[in-house]
Amino acid sequence: MRFDQRHLLGIEPLRPDEITTILDLADQYVTFNRSRDKHARALAGLTQINMFFENSTRTQSSFEIAGKRLGADVMNMAMQASSIKKGETLIDTAMTLNAMHPDLLVVRHPHSGAVDLLSQKVNCAVLNAGDGKHEHPTQALLDALTIRRAKGRLHRLNIAICGDIAHSRVARSNILLLHKMENRIRLVGPSTLIPSGIEHFGVEVYDDMRKGLEDVDVVMMLRLQRERMDGGFIPSEREYYHRYGLDAEKLAVAKPDAIVMHPGPMNRGVEIDGTLADDINRSVIQDQVEMGVAVRMAVMDLLARNLRANPKEIMA
Amino acid sequence: MRFDQRHLLGIEPLRPDEITTILDLADQYVTFNRSRDKHARALAGLTQINMFFENSTRTQSSFEIAGKRLGADVMNMAMQASSIKKGETLIDTAMTLNAMHPDLLVVRHPHSGAVDLLSQKVNCAVLNAGDGKHEHPTQALLDALTIRRAKGRLHRLNIAICGDIAHSRVARSNILLLHKMENRIRLVGPSTLIPSGIEHFGVEVYDDMRKGLEDVDVVMMLRLQRERMDGGFIPSEREYYHRYGLDAEKLAVAKPDAIVMHPGPMNRGVEIDGTLADDINRSVIQDQVEMGVAVRMAVMDLLARNLRANPKEIMA
Amino acid sequence: MRFDQRHLLGIEPLRPDEITTILDLADQYVTFNRSRDKHARALAGLTQINMFFENSTRTQSSFEIAGKRLGADVMNMAMQASSIKKGETLIDTAMTLNAMHPDLLVVRHPHSGAVDLLSQKVNCAVLNAGDGKHEHPTQALLDALTIRRAKGRLHRLNIAICGDIAHSRVARSNILLLHKMENRIRLVGPSTLIPSGIEHFGVEVYDDMRKGLEDVDVVMMLRLQRERMDGGFIPSEREYYHRYGLDAEKLAVAKPDAIVMHPGPMNRGVEIDGTLADDINRSVIQDQVEMGVAVRMAVMDLLARNLRANPKEIMA
Repeated sequence: MRFDQRHLLGIEPLRPDEITTILDLADQYVTFNRSRDKHARALAGLTQINMFFENSTRTQSSFEIAGKRLGADVMNMAMQASSIKKGETLIDTAMTLNAMHPDLLVVRHPHSGAVDLLSQKVNCAVLNAGDGKHEHPTQALLDALTIRRAKGRLHRLNIAICGDIAHSRVARSNILLLHKMENRIRLVGPSTLIPSGIEHFGVEVYDDMRKGLEDVDVVMMLRLQRERMDGGFIPSEREYYHRYGLDAEKLAVAKPDAIVMHPGPMNRGVEIDGTLADDINRSVIQDQVEMGVAVRMAVMDLLARNLRANPKEIMA
Repeated sequence: MRFDQRHLLGIEPLRPDEITTILDLADQYVTFNRSRDKHARALAGLTQINMFFENSTRTQSSFEIAGKRLGADVMNMAMQASSIKKGETLIDTAMTLNAMHPDLLVVRHPHSGAVDLLSQKVNCAVLNAGDGKHEHPTQALLDALTIRRAKGRLHRLNIAICGDIAHSRVARSNILLLHKMENRIRLVGPSTLIPSGIEHFGVEVYDDMRKGLEDVDVVMMLRLQRERMDGGFIPSEREYYHRYGLDAEKLAVAKPDAIVMHPGPMNRGVEIDGTLADDINRSVIQDQVEMGVAVRMAVMDLLARNLRANPKEIMA
Repeated sequence: MRFDQRHLLGIEPLRPDEITTILDLADQYVTFNRSRDKHARALAGLTQINMFFENSTRTQSSFEIAGKRLGADVMNMAMQASSIKKGETLIDTAMTLNAMHPDLLVVRHPHSGAVDLLSQKVNCAVLNAGDGKHEHPTQALLDALTIRRAKGRLHRLNIAICGDIAHSRVARSNILLLHKMENRIRLVGPSTLIPSGIEHFGVEVYDDMRKGLEDVDVVMMLRLQRERMDGGFIPSEREYYHRYGLDAEKLAVAKPDAIVMHPGPMNRGVEIDGTLADDINRSVIQDQVEMGVAVRMAVMDLLARNLRANPKEIMA
């Protein structure tokens, strides 16, 4: 079991065996979280700061619960997006925080690369909770854990990622992870929402959902990120649902035991049929949330072990 | 000492002996809270989530302090009322939370019955912190504890509940509780603010405050819930105070040792005279706040004992 | 080592030996905070409530981290400035909080004297986190610790406080502290931003920055408090920077080893040149943030010891 990272900035820097290390430990935390005695001391003595420059009740809550259950002192910083407009101010804010000696800094930021930049300025472990259109590594890890538990393996699966690929850091991190683990990835969506040239990354592209879903093991739906679409083509919700919304009929071409995923929050009747989303025989959407807490506990636990093992990195 | 509830959704489902169990334990927590060593482990290992769809600094703080003092991992969810408009979304939010495996879920919601609905979807103990015009059980319990400590008993008392009965979940929960404990309840207020037919619930109705307060042991004032009055008669504050605002003169017809209560926050000079509210010989308004923390600790402690005793209810 | 205070309302009531006691203990917490095992139990069993009527992410975070690291149960109250307009309401809010039995109450308020008033109504230790133009004692203490660590002593230093003295509680608390510790204080700024008659407090006043900084050991810059300037002269940022903004050229007349301080958040290019602010050979601005957490831990630790030693003060 090896994990050699100082930060979790994305899936890109991770080796396949490091991904497996995270998922194996997360499996243990799934069991832990289902008990009525779920407070541990893996992060005792450490300070975790959550710094969300974009609102995300779901992701922030997941990190907050994860840290508290592991015994960290957890603090949420209320960052008004309005007061943080310049890169300079981000760095000033980071340096101020750094001087308070956090050990784990969980950051979400609307600009791609902002979390990486910040990690170079501080003395603690930085976790990327989503940066622009770049990466959202804990989402990809929780999706991987969900798939591995449902399918019994995380390789040689046919996986379709459907919808607004172009604006999705979730898609990007998932493609990187699933590719590293040697799965066959299909991207399904209107060509306007799929980045050109992405075929070179070892994925197949489909604009016809009925073809794209044929014989897949996993159907991963994405959220329509209207807020990130700047001009250009924006489909009507009705038209989008007709062509790319997942329902029982479109799903029928997938394998009979194919699972349905969505990172949430869902737009029911836009990306996915509400009944299908609630069908516990097909949908693993609630499992994804559960795996999210476990994966975040595993990552923070592993980063904390590395912090403690490298005292020389501490700022004097 | 018995307490057989899985949730605290209202006063309605509670037996009188269960109410006494809560109050007896709360008495112990009153003493505990007055010390300088007030951190216990009754909720250690458990996760408490506060989910307030209506703002209430006072009630949320009380639950938060209660949970932290008992050693729970406590998280406040910032629920923007604006983003939660449909019942469907409430359930989606609840299911997401449930997947994070909270043990205690404290919920305030503007719609009557929403908390009950939610409790049917989750695997944890749900505490109603106020739902629409329906119930606010911890308020009634803290009022009961305040009365019992001030009067030495909680039965055969003459208790007047005054003001805006129609829009008040506080009144409703109090009527249910005080009736179960065999007190004599009077409702005092303008007929427009008293639900018709309520006499059948074993209460007496007065629209003349000087008659309604005659010989009572307890005067329980209510907040004017202007925000819940949809059209219809809204009295001017001046006129309301003149007829139904509590002052020393109106209080003079009550028993000489009658106590004055208010659930807060007060509109001084509308529902109650400021000097009377601050008179520590008559007003127990600050005691109510103190009892609030103790009662919430007692309820969460009892619910947690039941959770731990029934491991089979845990979601697999 | 003696510390005889029940509250920390300002620098004014503190004796020099009490200031030294705080700084000595804070030095220990600086070392503690630099470790990976920074959770103690000095405040275990106590409840700390942060009550900020003005927003201040930085100061509130510093107090929150300080309390959590010392094992307190910490709660932030979200006080909407809008709902708190009358002194009466402040007292009602304070009495409500008091009834929940906090042990440490950290308060920031826009009105001078509000924190003092509040301290007379409650049964716990009150810490002033800034009240109007009056005092901000923990800022002065953290500045003092920063100076003492950088200069090796906290007396007989030449210290220039520069900028908007008139609207600054930071300046006021610093003048009081540095005067008690027998330093030579210069105030530098436009006459419109320096209170008249302040020379009687044993300070020298300069409106020419090049003269004011001559041979000083410490240059303490202040934030322009535009939000507190009611009418009167408001300089343009450009003109202000030209005359009173600190840059390398103006700093050249100070001692060669003079340190540069700023309470943050900085207006780069208004009060201070950005490059100078980041020059770790001259600027101790990040150290000030670090000392802030340590000083707040020391003060809360000392106040808690006094609370525990005086059980008779507890409300019955």
